[in-house]
Amino acid sequence: MNVERFVENPLIRPAAVVPSRPDFQVVCAFNGGAIRVGDETVLLLRIAERPKDVPDGCLVAPVLDPHDLSRGIRLLIVRKDDPDYGALDSRVFRYRGETYLTSISHIRVARSGDGRRFEIEPEPAMFPATRDEEFGIEDPRITYIDGRYWINYSSISSRGITTSLAVTDDFRTFERKGVIFAPENRDITIFPEKVGGRYVCLHRPVASMIGGKDIWLAYSPDLLHWGDHRIVCRTRAGMWDSARIGGGAVPIRTEHGWLAIYHGADASDRYCLGALLLDESDPSRVLGRSREPLLAPEAEYERRGFFGNVVFTCGAVTDGDRLTIYYGAADECTCGAQVSIREILKNLE
Amino acid sequence: MNVERFVENPLIRPAAVVPSRPDFQVVCAFNGGAIRVGDETVLLLRIAERPKDVPDGCLVAPVLDPHDLSRGIRLLIVRKDDPDYGALDSRVFRYRGETYLTSISHIRVARSGDGRRFEIEPEPAMFPATRDEEFGIEDPRITYIDGRYWINYSSISSRGITTSLAVTDDFRTFERKGVIFAPENRDITIFPEKVGGRYVCLHRPVASMIGGKDIWLAYSPDLLHWGDHRIVCRTRAGMWDSARIGGGAVPIRTEHGWLAIYHGADASDRYCLGALLLDESDPSRVLGRSREPLLAPEAEYERRGFFGNVVFTCGAVTDGDRLTIYYGAADECTCGAQVSIREILKNLE
Repeated sequence: MNVERFVENPLIRPAAVVPSRPDFQVVCAFNGGAIRVGDETVLLLRIAERPKDVPDGCLVAPVLDPHDLSRGIRLLIVRKDDPDYGALDSRVFRYRGETYLTSISHIRVARSGDGRRFEIEPEPAMFPATRDEEFGIEDPRITYIDGRYWINYSSISSRGITTSLAVTDDFRTFERKGVIFAPENRDITIFPEKVGGRYVCLHRPVASMIGGKDIWLAYSPDLLHWGDHRIVCRTRAGMWDSARIGGGAVPIRTEHGWLAIYHGADASDRYCLGALLLDESDPSRVLGRSREPLLAPEAEYERRGFFGNVVFTCGAVTDGDRLTIYYGAADECTCGAQVSIREILKNLE
Repeated sequence: MNVERFVENPLIRPAAVVPSRPDFQVVCAFNGGAIRVGDETVLLLRIAERPKDVPDGCLVAPVLDPHDLSRGIRLLIVRKDDPDYGALDSRVFRYRGETYLTSISHIRVARSGDGRRFEIEPEPAMFPATRDEEFGIEDPRITYIDGRYWINYSSISSRGITTSLAVTDDFRTFERKGVIFAPENRDITIFPEKVGGRYVCLHRPVASMIGGKDIWLAYSPDLLHWGDHRIVCRTRAGMWDSARIGGGAVPIRTEHGWLAIYHGADASDRYCLGALLLDESDPSRVLGRSREPLLAPEAEYERRGFFGNVVFTCGAVTDGDRLTIYYGAADECTCGAQVSIREILKNLE
């Protein structure tokens, strides 16, 4: 498979992003939803921030004040030698029986004429604002349906990881539509057309007592209420997608069926990208799947960063046979890579 | 609180139930949905079965053959000294990285004129029949809406614990309506009326990485597709409902709001019943909650059984101020208890 990384990679580094307040620093600018709007490529980036100054020997969780949302973000400062503190990884820690994030994410617009050089808006497009968004909003996907841009994103709080929906016409004002998937569910990708008279999406629930972290599909009459859940595909033991899988870019209609770029991780938390081909009229039917990853973390900027050995996509754009995948590298930067759709399809099992 | 257990308890014991095939025995007859139909009380019981004869030193998981559903239930026999075997508890075990159940459940109709002496049908009403029901169907709730009986139940398979919907007019033929909640979700209770123009239910997702096992609420335009998820209430540290909570009986309209009997368990897996009072027009708003359990496992038949120290309800019926709660005792038998609705409401915090 000939997947060509952009020579300009990383396209967007955290240092290029203006923080939302002067005492914060941007630590990650990644996992952007992507769509063509006229002559432009628009990314909705996930921007993760944390305070610039953290007292020695401490860790900070920036969280929206749940008791008074209007007070904005407060800082929970935890000493690392506190017996109630437990380290998990660079992204999360435990404190007094609860899990906290070391950064808080919002969503920011970036625009480009050539798909490679992006201008990043100086202000957030969507900022955490509800009780369900207490720990941040993450990993947006954009689907253009019936003349409007629908955005689903992970809304994180102490209650769990839910998926919420918003809609925009201009990427300036965003109307929130509430929580569409209950905990724990993320990696929702909404198809750009109805299938059999209903909207359809891939989603990634987390089966706890029985089952795994697999890709499911749901239908909806109105994009707000979802049901008729069906499993699409499962993790594969011993392979690159053995531990968890989830939808990535919004599925693309091809003459052979729906092409979905998805992510898979193994037990060592190495995230790769692969492809699924789904039946046109019954997208819960898998017609083809990548045996080997389409893209694996190999470049230096993919192997090292905020959380290394990760390539993860929330969006791709097409131009004829050429698919440009925008992806987060090492949970830190935004990168791009191009590949022929025909070649992806040829290489499916 | 004056909760009066029926002197006839247990009302239904496993030995009173005809197994679905001669080589099976009924091990549990419990967790029945309950509803008044004319002069009768109808229960949809969960009947758990396993083979009568299990080879010495072995355990059996009865499962629907996923490769050929028409072949019915096959038996997975596992030696307890197999290094791939891992004991969990009387209900579940691990084998080769998968979780299996030690019994398989179906749904059976029982009818009573006085609400105490039940006649149990000799044949299953609903039997596992789909890939999502490979490990059984459990814990039905019945809601009467617009002239039809809607039944939601846990559909268990290697894919996870989902909730499915069916509908019946006569408790003889049941039409399946598919999976309405993706893994892991159970304890769905659908309200008997629309609220604000939409159907509404309580549900119990399982938050994995962040969050807990709390009660959420969702809305639906059609009972099939659900969204606008909102948290209702959470577990309470140090109390009888500290580890997990979930909806029990279908909520009852009172002049003060919706009364919901729910279950809560603590870290030792002791299951009790309590009550919630929810706002009439916004049932995600909790107006009252039991500080102490309404019913705790105290009677011998509640403390000892297939899985002891459990009282768990899927249904209750009202007669004026009198609420009759049907409940599973020790995950084995069906019992009943009566309580005054007025008294429950008076005792809420």
